[in-house]
Amino acid sequence: MGLARVGTKWVYDFAEGSREMRNLLGGKGANVAEMTRILGPDRVPTGFTITTEACVSYMENDHTAPDGMAEQVDEALARLEATADKTLGDADDPLLVSVRSGARESMPGMLDTVLNLGLNDESVQGLVERTGNERFAWDSYRRFVQMFGGVVRNIPGERFEHAIQAAKQEHGVTLDTELDVAALQALTATFREIFRDETGEEFPLKPRDQLEQAIGAVFDSWTGERAVAYRRINRIPDDWGTAVNVQQMVFGNKGETSGSGVAFSRDEVDGSPQPSGDFLVNAQGEDVVSGVRNTQDIADLRDVMPEAHATLMEILRTLEAHYKDMQDTEFTIEEGRLYMLQTRNAKRPAQAAVRFACDVVEEGLLTKAEAIATIDCEKLDALLHPTFDPTVDYGVLAKGVAASPGAATGEIVFSAPDAVQAGAAGRDVILVRPFTEAEDVAGFHAARGILTAEGGKASHAALVARGMGRPAVTGASALDIDLAKKELRVGETVLCEGDTISIDGTTGQITIDDVPLVEPEMTEYFQRVLAWSDELRRLGVRANADTPEDAIKARSFGAAGIGLCRTEHMFMAADRQPKMREMILSDTVEDRRAALDELLPLQQQDFEEILEAMDGLPVTIRLLDPPLHEFLLHDEDDPRAEALREVNPMLGTRGCRLAILHPEIYEMQVRAIMRAQRAVTQRLGHPPSLEVMVPLIDYERELEIIEELIFRVAREEGVKREHYLVGTMIELPRACFLADTIATHADFFSFGTNDLTQTALGFSRDDIEGKILSPYIENKIFDRSPFETLDAPGVGQLVRMGAWLGRKTKLELKLGICGEHGGDPDSIDFFHNSGLNYVSCSPFRVPVARVAAAQAAIRRGDDGGW
Amino acid sequence: MGLARVGTKWVYDFAEGSREMRNLLGGKGANVAEMTRILGPDRVPTGFTITTEACVSYMENDHTAPDGMAEQVDEALARLEATADKTLGDADDPLLVSVRSGARESMPGMLDTVLNLGLNDESVQGLVERTGNERFAWDSYRRFVQMFGGVVRNIPGERFEHAIQAAKQEHGVTLDTELDVAALQALTATFREIFRDETGEEFPLKPRDQLEQAIGAVFDSWTGERAVAYRRINRIPDDWGTAVNVQQMVFGNKGETSGSGVAFSRDEVDGSPQPSGDFLVNAQGEDVVSGVRNTQDIADLRDVMPEAHATLMEILRTLEAHYKDMQDTEFTIEEGRLYMLQTRNAKRPAQAAVRFACDVVEEGLLTKAEAIATIDCEKLDALLHPTFDPTVDYGVLAKGVAASPGAATGEIVFSAPDAVQAGAAGRDVILVRPFTEAEDVAGFHAARGILTAEGGKASHAALVARGMGRPAVTGASALDIDLAKKELRVGETVLCEGDTISIDGTTGQITIDDVPLVEPEMTEYFQRVLAWSDELRRLGVRANADTPEDAIKARSFGAAGIGLCRTEHMFMAADRQPKMREMILSDTVEDRRAALDELLPLQQQDFEEILEAMDGLPVTIRLLDPPLHEFLLHDEDDPRAEALREVNPMLGTRGCRLAILHPEIYEMQVRAIMRAQRAVTQRLGHPPSLEVMVPLIDYERELEIIEELIFRVAREEGVKREHYLVGTMIELPRACFLADTIATHADFFSFGTNDLTQTALGFSRDDIEGKILSPYIENKIFDRSPFETLDAPGVGQLVRMGAWLGRKTKLELKLGICGEHGGDPDSIDFFHNSGLNYVSCSPFRVPVARVAAAQAAIRRGDDGGW
Repeated sequence: MGLARVGTKWVYDFAEGSREMRNLLGGKGANVAEMTRILGPDRVPTGFTITTEACVSYMENDHTAPDGMAEQVDEALARLEATADKTLGDADDPLLVSVRSGARESMPGMLDTVLNLGLNDESVQGLVERTGNERFAWDSYRRFVQMFGGVVRNIPGERFEHAIQAAKQEHGVTLDTELDVAALQALTATFREIFRDETGEEFPLKPRDQLEQAIGAVFDSWTGERAVAYRRINRIPDDWGTAVNVQQMVFGNKGETSGSGVAFSRDEVDGSPQPSGDFLVNAQGEDVVSGVRNTQDIADLRDVMPEAHATLMEILRTLEAHYKDMQDTEFTIEEGRLYMLQTRNAKRPAQAAVRFACDVVEEGLLTKAEAIATIDCEKLDALLHPTFDPTVDYGVLAKGVAASPGAATGEIVFSAPDAVQAGAAGRDVILVRPFTEAEDVAGFHAARGILTAEGGKASHAALVARGMGRPAVTGASALDIDLAKKELRVGETVLCEGDTISIDGTTGQITIDDVPLVEPEMTEYFQRVLAWSDELRRLGVRANADTPEDAIKARSFGAAGIGLCRTEHMFMAADRQPKMREMILSDTVEDRRAALDELLPLQQQDFEEILEAMDGLPVTIRLLDPPLHEFLLHDEDDPRAEALREVNPMLGTRGCRLAILHPEIYEMQVRAIMRAQRAVTQRLGHPPSLEVMVPLIDYERELEIIEELIFRVAREEGVKREHYLVGTMIELPRACFLADTIATHADFFSFGTNDLTQTALGFSRDDIEGKILSPYIENKIFDRSPFETLDAPGVGQLVRMGAWLGRKTKLELKLGICGEHGGDPDSIDFFHNSGLNYVSCSPFRVPVARVAAAQAAIRRGDDGGW
Repeated sequence: MGLARVGTKWVYDFAEGSREMRNLLGGKGANVAEMTRILGPDRVPTGFTITTEACVSYMENDHTAPDGMAEQVDEALARLEATADKTLGDADDPLLVSVRSGARESMPGMLDTVLNLGLNDESVQGLVERTGNERFAWDSYRRFVQMFGGVVRNIPGERFEHAIQAAKQEHGVTLDTELDVAALQALTATFREIFRDETGEEFPLKPRDQLEQAIGAVFDSWTGERAVAYRRINRIPDDWGTAVNVQQMVFGNKGETSGSGVAFSRDEVDGSPQPSGDFLVNAQGEDVVSGVRNTQDIADLRDVMPEAHATLMEILRTLEAHYKDMQDTEFTIEEGRLYMLQTRNAKRPAQAAVRFACDVVEEGLLTKAEAIATIDCEKLDALLHPTFDPTVDYGVLAKGVAASPGAATGEIVFSAPDAVQAGAAGRDVILVRPFTEAEDVAGFHAARGILTAEGGKASHAALVARGMGRPAVTGASALDIDLAKKELRVGETVLCEGDTISIDGTTGQITIDDVPLVEPEMTEYFQRVLAWSDELRRLGVRANADTPEDAIKARSFGAAGIGLCRTEHMFMAADRQPKMREMILSDTVEDRRAALDELLPLQQQDFEEILEAMDGLPVTIRLLDPPLHEFLLHDEDDPRAEALREVNPMLGTRGCRLAILHPEIYEMQVRAIMRAQRAVTQRLGHPPSLEVMVPLIDYERELEIIEELIFRVAREEGVKREHYLVGTMIELPRACFLADTIATHADFFSFGTNDLTQTALGFSRDDIEGKILSPYIENKIFDRSPFETLDAPGVGQLVRMGAWLGRKTKLELKLGICGEHGGDPDSIDFFHNSGLNYVSCSPFRVPVARVAAAQAAIRRGDDGGW
């Protein structure tokens, strides 16, 4: 854990590392080392990495570097100077370095970076001499002072910006690039005065001091607010720490034969084979990703610097083949020579991910299993997101960059906090900003979509939105945003906070017309990915569907059946609620039976339609579950209604307990089910695959009693025992412990992980989500809601115990889960590993679950070796 | 399981059995066999036992006797006839037999019995000849027809009673005994007509048919309503079945040198050494226990039949020494000769049980462990029951038999169903009846006390009340009860349903004055039993106490500390609730802190008093647990109050979750605790034994955060770490699974089995007890509330898992439980076997728990061999 052990190696030269050392060297450090190995030392600027363990030790020891680290940095620096044949701070030919963060997982823009480190009053002269470009050297120097002040000492950016504005006014120019050497020298002096003013110290001129402080600042940025917020959302543990990469600077801002850019090995939006990216001539890398200057497409590089372009294309192919995944690279061209600064697996939207997966299998680069494993299946949801209805005419208010696919409609909000607040209140909002920054990330999470006036496909807004699967349109330059007035102008149109707007991140269109959103066609690529997933996975995927419509949708998404058909939703319908109410408030069993008799044909009709829609696939119908009180009117003042109120309805008279108290309710439901079974059997010519499920079983005897009732009614209705299954929800901790006894009366178990989470953790979902989640995440008690991803150590143990005990009694016992965890990839992985037969989730999550189930099988090596 | 296996032995002669064969032969059969062995064959009428396995087989095979049973009964009957030298149905010297039930556990009056079997028109003549008593013979015959008709064919008793009434009118007599031979002959003929009329069959005259039907009827009585209800209450499994004992009749009704009685080897009420009991001259045994005739005290037998008395006394001593327990016997004297019909360990009230335990150790009959094991510790509660305050003058309305100790006050009800209904509504009632019968048992359970106008210490009412530990006064003959009018008259006084009455079952007094009940002194015997229990037990016993008064009471009952001091009850006090309300409804943390500052000194005062009262013993103070909403007014219409309402408050924002959201609340409480600790340390000169307990922990991190808070505040208040412990409730299933991680932050665990039962079973205690319990017991889902006795397979597994995992991390971890199960003997046995250190229960249950803990140790053989 990085305690300061004698002899610990804290620093690795790039030449010593490899991509396997990601945990120690961070993603960037490991990849730069790997690139150095593949592309050779001349293509990657030399440098070294200070390990994540050093960072952890630094955090644990009150922000003090571990013993030995300083000495190792000195030694590595000496080697770097020898290789580069330059010296840090040298007045003749100075070495300049960048100091960059690099965590295990990429956290774009969240951690700090210092460039041009090593400049001071002497070395700037050396830079002038070596480059023969006095203006470049002084511009680099003033940039360095500015960046160092901001990053290392937290000096507000506007202090430097104001000084630049003043200088431009003084010299009567409008662009930074128009400032001459003298102006830049004066500006550097002013920046150092600002530094002294803000920190009470002189700007450090010794390069070794600069380096030490910069390294500490990168370490510190790991625990900065932005980084912490990002980790929360992206589920990155706090105790990983970041590595620090010290690398010789190369300069993309040395004139028209220089430049910087980002390049993807394939199109990062649609996944098609041609590389994509942005670049800027005569610029450093930060200029490209900041979105401040409008970038050029990478294809244009062919015309500007054909040789560099050709080399880059070849390198992209080499890297992709090596990493067996789509690559996201950063490069700099210094006076015509291409340097690769970074490569990593490209984050990409679902459409690009599925296209990539299909293409690389065709190309023979990856096996199907390897290709499926490259997909972030959580994002596949976006492929099922709506788009603007193409058959409807609507006015396009403006058009921007199609930065993250999917369409969204919502009220305009102009700040991340407003988005968070509105999102918490359940409102759909579109976050509208000139451009976005790291501190806006929480707002992305809360918003339906993101719209910016600036930035391209590689801008912060685009990257983060794609990372989260949120639709985004960026760089819509026709937008004139006044944050102070909370107003958005597009020509004559003025929109205010709360006005409705729609964006389509697949086309870049923006509209204020009332355009309906339509469901996407499933692309051929996606279909192929799903088909391969079906070959690879071992876990069945069913859907939770309560209506014939849902059943049809589920089928279209590839559900292998219905894992949960809740019968209670049918009772909520307007024509049924009064009858249900009458039934509940009956004074006698006879009255209740009379009311139930009226409900029976309606239930039967529902069941017939669902069974027919799912012909050939199993349908699990759950008998009535919620407390009866839920079916009454809210303002019911009948004393019988009052008697039904419960202190903790979740733990009250519900599920099978209703049937022990009032067997006539389940009897009606079972009769309706069995009559539907008979009717559908007649129409189809064969019996549908019917499964009757009993909720909330605690005791073997409960299920025995209800099983007897089901058998009896089925006999009475002439349905043979072999034409239906009887099973139970396992959703209480006791049932997991007693699953061996319960299994004697069950053909199948379906784990109800929602209720199991509520009981195992003692969390009422209704009460907890608003109040507890945020403070619990802030206090690092958990990193996400246990209702979203299964709590493996607690609830998961119960599931495994229930599964094991159930199968101990009945080897052939069918096991499924029908909580909302059934659509969550991490939970699906757990269920696969627990030997379950199927998961059941909402129809829209079925495709995600199919891929997630395949990935679980691949991860565990039981994918049949495809 | 008694399936009809070839070669199964279904029938055992008395001479073949022994008391070890109780499960097979039933209690009565095993004891009669054992008595035959000890006392010799001449002292016990000969007979045989049909096994409980035969009954189980009969029940399983649709009420058909298993193969081979009939033949074995024939063979046993032949042996019995040979031994008795008489033949069943013989016209000269007929054998008559009784056919009695006999389950593993005694179920007095619940199962059926047929006497005088073997009588018919021929054998009655034989009986006349052999006894020379024509009236006796014909009276026996008509009794047999009556009993057979009632028991075997369910003919309503009133049909026979009406015929007797008619006969008495016809002959102008008032007593049954005044009917002459001719009248009895006519009555027998009438009874056989009633039999034919009710059953459509002739009364069976062949003795072998009579026997077969009687055996079937006894088997059937096992599944009769009364028996099932009794088993529910007494927790006897349904699948045990009953044995059937066929035994030669002896006659206590052969004149003045005959008689029947029940005798206890010691006084069955106070346990003192002289034998007690009741008898009737010239009567059969049923007359004694029915309570219809007023019996004589067994001491009077010395005067009436001195020889039989002397023999009986000697036999009682022999049996007690043999069984090493107080004996409850039935005997018959036939023409001066004593026969023992039955013996069994005597059910006895707590005072008799503790007296017996002490005396037998003195006498050298039993070891301390053996003596403690004879106590039914569930009944000890009665010794802690109140009595009428002897210092207060009150009018005695009437006096009856002191049938079951303890005093009670309640509203009068006149039927068992009324008692059940009132009890369910939470009202205290006294069940008032002329006499009680088996079908009244449920009413005993629901009532605070029982009062009857008829019957003695051996009456049904007395037996059952003592069995349940309910105070009872029987045989209060001054009471004139009109069930139809629901009126009770005593001289001029008329009491109606709902009027308040008080009874003292220790003295037999009845009053309608408002006499206060006072707590009993602990007798010397009880003190000795408790002291021995303390030597024997391994489990500590603490008390749950929230106030200094409770703490003092707990100490006086021998509590070894406070296992649960709930801090929330202090906030409910009138002077605190408004401040609590103010705190809860604060808009800012500052306002909340200000309100908390006012509460702090009040809490500190409470803690100081409790810590001082418990000086030298540990005090576990639990930090705030209930949801804040509970402290507000019911009609609070503040929107902030509304926001605190939860759908399932049991699973909501409570326990440690409050402290994660509002750390200032626990901070105030911990500060008050630590200040109290310092203040008391100064006054006592040494630190009290303080334990701070955190409720509702789910995650290790929760406890880590709160532990840090406790450490910090303790430091701030100058209390050293070694002067307090920090521990946690383990009351959620997740915490049991994660107990190894939680234990890293805990000095002790206290299992909160109330909440653990709620969550593991998904039962809200508030909602379930009224609605679910009865139907669940009726449906045999469970035999008692899981909130009363720990659900071992579910909740118990969680406790064991938590205990094991906690000790895995920390071998010295102190483990306790503080749910209400801490005072339940069966649950205490489970906790002992689970290796816990202590239980904590309400102060009144502490003595019971001390004895129960000793019994658990004795049962498991880890009582140190005392």
